[in-house]
Amino acid sequence: MKRNVLIIGAGGVAHVAAHKCAQNNILLGDIHIASRTVTKCDAIIASIREKDSQCGPGQLKAHALDALDISATTALIRETGCQIVINAGSPFLNMAVMSACIEAGAAYLDTAIHEDPAKVCEAPPWYGNYEWKRREECSQAGVTAVLGVGFDPGVVNAYGRFALDTYFDKVDSIDIIDINAGSHGRYFATNFDPEINFREFTSTVWSWEKNQWKANKMFEHRQEWDMPVVGTHATYLTGHDELHSMSKHLGVPNIRFWMGFGEHYINVFNVLNNLGLLSEKPVRTAEGQEVVPLKVVKAILPDPASLAPTYSGKTCIGDLVKGSKDGKKQEVLVYNICDHKTCFEEVGSQAISYTAGVPVVAAAMLIADGQWDVGHMVNVEELNPAPFIELMNRMGLVTRVRDASGDRVLEPQKERASLTVEDQSDAQVLVGHFGYQQSTLAEQRMTG
Amino acid sequence: MKRNVLIIGAGGVAHVAAHKCAQNNILLGDIHIASRTVTKCDAIIASIREKDSQCGPGQLKAHALDALDISATTALIRETGCQIVINAGSPFLNMAVMSACIEAGAAYLDTAIHEDPAKVCEAPPWYGNYEWKRREECSQAGVTAVLGVGFDPGVVNAYGRFALDTYFDKVDSIDIIDINAGSHGRYFATNFDPEINFREFTSTVWSWEKNQWKANKMFEHRQEWDMPVVGTHATYLTGHDELHSMSKHLGVPNIRFWMGFGEHYINVFNVLNNLGLLSEKPVRTAEGQEVVPLKVVKAILPDPASLAPTYSGKTCIGDLVKGSKDGKKQEVLVYNICDHKTCFEEVGSQAISYTAGVPVVAAAMLIADGQWDVGHMVNVEELNPAPFIELMNRMGLVTRVRDASGDRVLEPQKERASLTVEDQSDAQVLVGHFGYQQSTLAEQRMTG
Repeated sequence: MKRNVLIIGAGGVAHVAAHKCAQNNILLGDIHIASRTVTKCDAIIASIREKDSQCGPGQLKAHALDALDISATTALIRETGCQIVINAGSPFLNMAVMSACIEAGAAYLDTAIHEDPAKVCEAPPWYGNYEWKRREECSQAGVTAVLGVGFDPGVVNAYGRFALDTYFDKVDSIDIIDINAGSHGRYFATNFDPEINFREFTSTVWSWEKNQWKANKMFEHRQEWDMPVVGTHATYLTGHDELHSMSKHLGVPNIRFWMGFGEHYINVFNVLNNLGLLSEKPVRTAEGQEVVPLKVVKAILPDPASLAPTYSGKTCIGDLVKGSKDGKKQEVLVYNICDHKTCFEEVGSQAISYTAGVPVVAAAMLIADGQWDVGHMVNVEELNPAPFIELMNRMGLVTRVRDASGDRVLEPQKERASLTVEDQSDAQVLVGHFGYQQSTLAEQRMTG
Repeated sequence: MKRNVLIIGAGGVAHVAAHKCAQNNILLGDIHIASRTVTKCDAIIASIREKDSQCGPGQLKAHALDALDISATTALIRETGCQIVINAGSPFLNMAVMSACIEAGAAYLDTAIHEDPAKVCEAPPWYGNYEWKRREECSQAGVTAVLGVGFDPGVVNAYGRFALDTYFDKVDSIDIIDINAGSHGRYFATNFDPEINFREFTSTVWSWEKNQWKANKMFEHRQEWDMPVVGTHATYLTGHDELHSMSKHLGVPNIRFWMGFGEHYINVFNVLNNLGLLSEKPVRTAEGQEVVPLKVVKAILPDPASLAPTYSGKTCIGDLVKGSKDGKKQEVLVYNICDHKTCFEEVGSQAISYTAGVPVVAAAMLIADGQWDVGHMVNVEELNPAPFIELMNRMGLVTRVRDASGDRVLEPQKERASLTVEDQSDAQVLVGHFGYQQSTLAEQRMTG
């Protein structure tokens, strides 16, 4: 059993991950949080103490770390005896943190793909540019690396895999739909790091169509969806990490990602983008200062964490899967509803951070427990989704399914039992030692 | 007769001023251009040579100068033997350049009010914060300082004064209306230094109402005007330099400034302003760099000078004056129409630079000629407007008047003769030695 977790980063996702690790420290052991700014780690620890999130005895400790310094990170992993590293820092750090994990023999998890600060939207598949080049290295070191295990990428990859295995003989398309129907009450804000948020939208939109990459423009394709709880929302075809692994691993000819945007967001985005203020390339001011415009935009926007106290409304993220079973057309939506206010009450974060922070801790628990400790590099759709979905159901992120039979909580074991007998070996579900107190919270969140 | 002109600055207004000085160097003598970046001065000189703007023999010389360095500026004025200094540099330089003029005994002219880079929109009257504090100093030194002698401020002050003296016994209101009905064909651009442009709109809008200052918000008051040539345009009550002197000198109870804005400009402005990107206050990026957002916005926007080659359409700027004469209600519009393309053909600039650059040279010529060489500090409305209007009619900026009698070119001498006999002493108009070639251009501009 792998124990002791090092969380790298002290932003919104790290905050949630730290709370969730603390809630499950009977399994996970000591919790260490490391960031360039150690006071941010201290603030997370203070929040854990305030919310009384820590379940059993164990260390909870802050560290100052420049995670681009591989030897410093390796040393910290060794000193703290951490066998699991959750990289919740900037996507610019991924390769450095992965190197430290390989060096120290610790399991590696992250929630977003590696990015080079100087490049936006590289050639697809994105994982091929950095992560997958190091598969062999992970295998040789016997290091488990689970890539992109937030909500999207992460949970939506597991949803795709689960739907494919459970409800279909043949899948034609997976449309991943991400709607934040919440309201933060500010003029404009991004829900996570503005720099990373905007970088998603400033270049080519890659989608997977008829088993090929197709280049589209941002806001070129609009689609309305009638989603559970949040209702009808406009979305736009958007480039996203998970397409770049699901297209390789699932054998599905069409995989698209649709992000919900309001008119106001689009207007502000278009103004900034058309002016060149979202550029990652430095400009020179009249006074001769070299400045990256996007970093200035980030500096003037609200800190996403500051939105949480007043955030209201819900998110709805899921996979709409279309195909056939026993020769009959089939359409299934696997999804989650998350409430901003409930998240804030539980851990002091809004739902966007919550939906990314819970899955990575669930994955850490499945590594600790051995079920996902595969000893090599994987994307989430390569792993058995059943224990992951089951565990999240009890940790505050409840999965639901809507199909011809209606709308219900997705309990992998039951769902598979009702459909096939052979599949039951997959559905070995973790038992109660992760603290069933979350299941109460989960039900509140779902129905609240 | 004062001779030899030092132009400080090498932006759009300086470019036009240099061309116009060169066209009139038989009166003005040598022309010197000084800027921090001497290559910009060289480019202006190259443009003068290319357009063959220089009329008679005389020096045309570029100098590198940091105009905040008062002793360097004083030395340059002395070395070059310049008796007239046209400050067409940043409004942040005014007080330093004025100090050098007082020290060297040269006449001082500028086209915009002094600004402190760290402050936006100080208490009214704005001239009271910097310029007027130095009136006594100018008088003691016998230095002529003509403040704000571009188009607005500048020509519109003269229009107000002329209308008041000529058409009214009593004036109730002057509405200064500034419409640029031109099109630059870019996504977004400002027509002069974006930093100075945006600083006009980011704070309190002061207007002069019932003999008092009234604080308004930007885009709070909208008014459509049916203007000659350009037609009906929406304008918004805006704070502007000239209100701060005209309110003191003209005894008119209501003086307002209305700037024309399109929907697109307002949208972009609002997005930038609401986000905090137009702030003059530094912010700190995540990487620890101190940056003034407004300076970054300036850096990414098109250089206003770069718009000129493709700029089409016309500007219309004027004073709508309401009051009474001989007990009868009276309404007069005194205005100018300027064509972007014609300006570009003549001097390589767009109309916004042209309308600011021509008046300051006309003022320099009236100082050289003695008519405006008053030996103390004045705002334009304190001077006799007749020779100024007359001279500009021949230099490319033709003034027109629209009233109950129709719409016609405003020739001060004729206009006054037709109305009163006593006023004719004012109307001593300069004669042809300024080169009548401009009058042909002027007619083209007006009718073209």
